[in-house]
Amino acid sequence: MLVIKIGGGAAIGEGGYTNFAEDLATITEPVVVVHGGNAEFSDLSRRLGMPPRMITSSSGRVTRYTDAATMDSMLMAYCGKVNKRLVATLRAAGVNAVGLSSIDGGIAVGRRKPVLRGTETGKSKVLRDDHAGTLESIDPTLVRLLLQNGYMPVLTPPALGEEGVPINVDGDKLALELATALRADGLLFFSDTPGLLRDRNDESTLIAEIDASSPDSALAAAAGRMVVKVEAALGAVERGVGRVVFADGRIANPIQAALSGQGTTVRYSSPVASYSGGQ
Amino acid sequence: MLVIKIGGGAAIGEGGYTNFAEDLATITEPVVVVHGGNAEFSDLSRRLGMPPRMITSSSGRVTRYTDAATMDSMLMAYCGKVNKRLVATLRAAGVNAVGLSSIDGGIAVGRRKPVLRGTETGKSKVLRDDHAGTLESIDPTLVRLLLQNGYMPVLTPPALGEEGVPINVDGDKLALELATALRADGLLFFSDTPGLLRDRNDESTLIAEIDASSPDSALAAAAGRMVVKVEAALGAVERGVGRVVFADGRIANPIQAALSGQGTTVRYSSPVASYSGGQ
Repeated sequence: MLVIKIGGGAAIGEGGYTNFAEDLATITEPVVVVHGGNAEFSDLSRRLGMPPRMITSSSGRVTRYTDAATMDSMLMAYCGKVNKRLVATLRAAGVNAVGLSSIDGGIAVGRRKPVLRGTETGKSKVLRDDHAGTLESIDPTLVRLLLQNGYMPVLTPPALGEEGVPINVDGDKLALELATALRADGLLFFSDTPGLLRDRNDESTLIAEIDASSPDSALAAAAGRMVVKVEAALGAVERGVGRVVFADGRIANPIQAALSGQGTTVRYSSPVASYSGGQ
Repeated sequence: MLVIKIGGGAAIGEGGYTNFAEDLATITEPVVVVHGGNAEFSDLSRRLGMPPRMITSSSGRVTRYTDAATMDSMLMAYCGKVNKRLVATLRAAGVNAVGLSSIDGGIAVGRRKPVLRGTETGKSKVLRDDHAGTLESIDPTLVRLLLQNGYMPVLTPPALGEEGVPINVDGDKLALELATALRADGLLFFSDTPGLLRDRNDESTLIAEIDASSPDSALAAAAGRMVVKVEAALGAVERGVGRVVFADGRIANPIQAALSGQGTTVRYSSPVASYSGGQ
């Protein structure tokens, strides 16, 4: 079983959906798709006169302020346009797709942090009524039911907060927790880069493989947000996910490419593979 | 099993969702919810600079022209904001709701009529790239699977066109076809009127009951769009739906009220009921 995260950047648009649909139509093992929608979300927010407000915390973490009206835009972009256009493309290719938010069927519960403190364009701010939060728990019951009955679940944030309001949670984290809960054989992250790069401005510095038994050199070479990604991938592999791949979502047959070793693969080098390699 | 259609008019907003959620939390029989979203759709379209364009056909039928950008607004309003806000409200009340469009899982297939001819504000028009159409077929497999496993499906248009694009289909028709396919005991239509009125401007002219064995007087009293509604209800009852109720969606406990006889009920007067009535 595979969990596939399709990033919500502008580079993977509706043409990209078709590339994924062609691959998913031929794949025989069960697949769960998780997608983002950030480019559509920001675009819609701007068109509605509510451009994104980015707040930097004291620790340097950048968060998008999500008040109730902004949450409506998130619901519209992620659960409306992106989810349904992707499902329609998949179904047209013969994939038995079912689009859901992680609110539906109690798939994911988040904890809201209603007060957001930090700086916005250099000025200190305390913003209330924030609908962003952290993912607290995953219930894969509905996802399993759909998989067992031949459907391909296509999931998106937001999650549901304990008080009944939608919560803006991180899509990568949703995919990761779901892959772990389902003990997926593979978790593939597709975005607008060829994989993890030692130098983010130089695609020739791609790290092809990280052995989860000795990740130190990779972690030492990684910088900034990449460290977070590698650590999350190592955690997933440690908790039973077969492998995590960071791969390019902008190419034809992106899933086939990722499964055949393109991009960055994080896993334990198996004893068998080591032995074969030594012959 | 009940199918409940919640109209998408402005009168049933998020406060209305709470009224429905309270009723649905206490109901013991399986329920499928179908909802509209027209007020949110029109509001979003206006905010995005694309106000609704209404085209009148030669037979007098008024259709909303839905080009690709307008379809995106429909997806955002119906499948994004309305569907997920309603599901979140239901889940917060303890209802195990799952929100879906009728694209998902192949629930409904529509046939697109890409060329729309008629008049717009008096001028003759031929508009291309229309994404409105008619409902062609229903597959209740996914809906049944969810019901059998304790979930409450919450469905919305659009449907999927044969060529893989979303199709704007009528929500009332979707509810009707679904109730027929599922042989529902009841199909309840909630809107911003107390039921079917002989005089649409006078709520005291409510028709409380229409006997499907002798609907002629009701049909004679009905006018315009009401005739279409009564005929559709009679068709559903004839095809095995227990009863169809047109009821007020703006009140507290709307479902309890509709089931207890408020609004307009269309059904066959049973032999037992006739006999008891004669005593």
